[in-house]
Amino acid sequence: MTFLSKLTGAQRNQQTLLCVGLDADPKLLPSVVKQASNPVLEFNRRIIEATQDLVCAYKLNLAFYEALGDSGWETMRQTLAAIPGSIVTIGDGKRGDIGNSSEQYAKAMFELGFDAVTVNPYMGFDSIEPFLKNPQRGAFILALTSNPGSKDFQRLRIGRVPLYEKVAATAKKWNKNKNVGLVAGATHPKELQRIRKLAPTLPLLIPGIGKQGGDLKSSVRFGCDKHGELALINASRSVIYASSGEDFAAAARREATKLRDEIRRYQEEYFQK
Amino acid sequence: MTFLSKLTGAQRNQQTLLCVGLDADPKLLPSVVKQASNPVLEFNRRIIEATQDLVCAYKLNLAFYEALGDSGWETMRQTLAAIPGSIVTIGDGKRGDIGNSSEQYAKAMFELGFDAVTVNPYMGFDSIEPFLKNPQRGAFILALTSNPGSKDFQRLRIGRVPLYEKVAATAKKWNKNKNVGLVAGATHPKELQRIRKLAPTLPLLIPGIGKQGGDLKSSVRFGCDKHGELALINASRSVIYASSGEDFAAAARREATKLRDEIRRYQEEYFQK
Repeated sequence: MTFLSKLTGAQRNQQTLLCVGLDADPKLLPSVVKQASNPVLEFNRRIIEATQDLVCAYKLNLAFYEALGDSGWETMRQTLAAIPGSIVTIGDGKRGDIGNSSEQYAKAMFELGFDAVTVNPYMGFDSIEPFLKNPQRGAFILALTSNPGSKDFQRLRIGRVPLYEKVAATAKKWNKNKNVGLVAGATHPKELQRIRKLAPTLPLLIPGIGKQGGDLKSSVRFGCDKHGELALINASRSVIYASSGEDFAAAARREATKLRDEIRRYQEEYFQK
Repeated sequence: MTFLSKLTGAQRNQQTLLCVGLDADPKLLPSVVKQASNPVLEFNRRIIEATQDLVCAYKLNLAFYEALGDSGWETMRQTLAAIPGSIVTIGDGKRGDIGNSSEQYAKAMFELGFDAVTVNPYMGFDSIEPFLKNPQRGAFILALTSNPGSKDFQRLRIGRVPLYEKVAATAKKWNKNKNVGLVAGATHPKELQRIRKLAPTLPLLIPGIGKQGGDLKSSVRFGCDKHGELALINASRSVIYASSGEDFAAAARREATKLRDEIRRYQEEYFQK
């Protein structure tokens, strides 16, 4: 199955655009999982169990797993094994290096089992090509990210066009295998609208709602394609740390349900879905 | 000791600007190490033993270690343990993410033991700041990379200035803790000269000689500061895979010696050192 059909399938079957970020920080784990032999894995498993019918994708931010040290890689692998095969998995590592090295990154991420990755466009085509060779795997290229630093370079103007639009337009050209997506932060609704216009058929991974203060309504309205699909609205901390008590999984489920339902309402409002 | 003094010390004590990239690809290992319990580690240890008096730094490209799977992190840690404490170690991962995540990356890399890392500037200041907090650790920010894709975005013009120059000038402003460096490919000698002018006192990590065809002479001439120092000339494959036979370590030493000596000749020629 191609990456695009898997993503579309997951969104349609579960009627959801929600992506949950499994960014497990050992310092923030509820004490109830701390007795497990691998607390992060135990936490992830329980979050997955509690939310798997509410999401189209799970995103693992590699930073949090690398910070675990030697056990990080295995924890990711076992977390991926706990995710139902119909749900898209995204390795959020923002990688990118010369071709020879990016091939190794692609091997690392896809052998681990991710369906898709995030990549950084700064080093250009040969740094991204290795992630795009297999139509069954996808890559979300950073366009305009959700953080304050996105203004430092991404918004600089190349002639009349900001760099992130240049990236979006170029990414569209690289989409020969129909497996390119873009990252566009929920914290910039107007620019999200512009990115969607430039790339009407590309999946958009939209981080920044919740803790970062991005706007959910505009993320759905401007992030979806014309069918009201192909946006992946990501929430991490606001869902997985909804409670630090024994009820953490149930609290994550409540928070995820709220988000999924709110997203659906906006889909109905703007796309008659 | 600050990062900058460690680097300067390593370059002066051993009279070398050479940095060797330990990018061990299991497919390219000499058969003589394949019997070891951890062939990549065995290979690295023997390369380090054979070249440690010839280099100011070792660079580990994280892509190659992640491609090893579960054992990658431990292999890096044990490789770092085999490197003498006076030599600079660089974790070449080209990381960068929102502040909260970059903090985790910085924790991961610096707890592993790296003195410095490479980082990607695309996401701006808050994505790089966590790597710069400790003056004992440094970060080399990608400016103009050695690969063909460097033309896709890095050379786009912001007004009259190419993006990579904007990055170099901005990086200089971020150098409050005297631990910022830049990455500038040996494959672009004229632009390297320009970057050195923009950032006269920053260490420059210069990949791209050897396999990638970069020019060693101009790398020394244009990459060094006015004292003929602060360039780190990196070679990876051309040194570590100089022979695939039992003599691989001796062959790596020969190749590294040749490079170190050639670098010294150019230092004498251009800087009367």
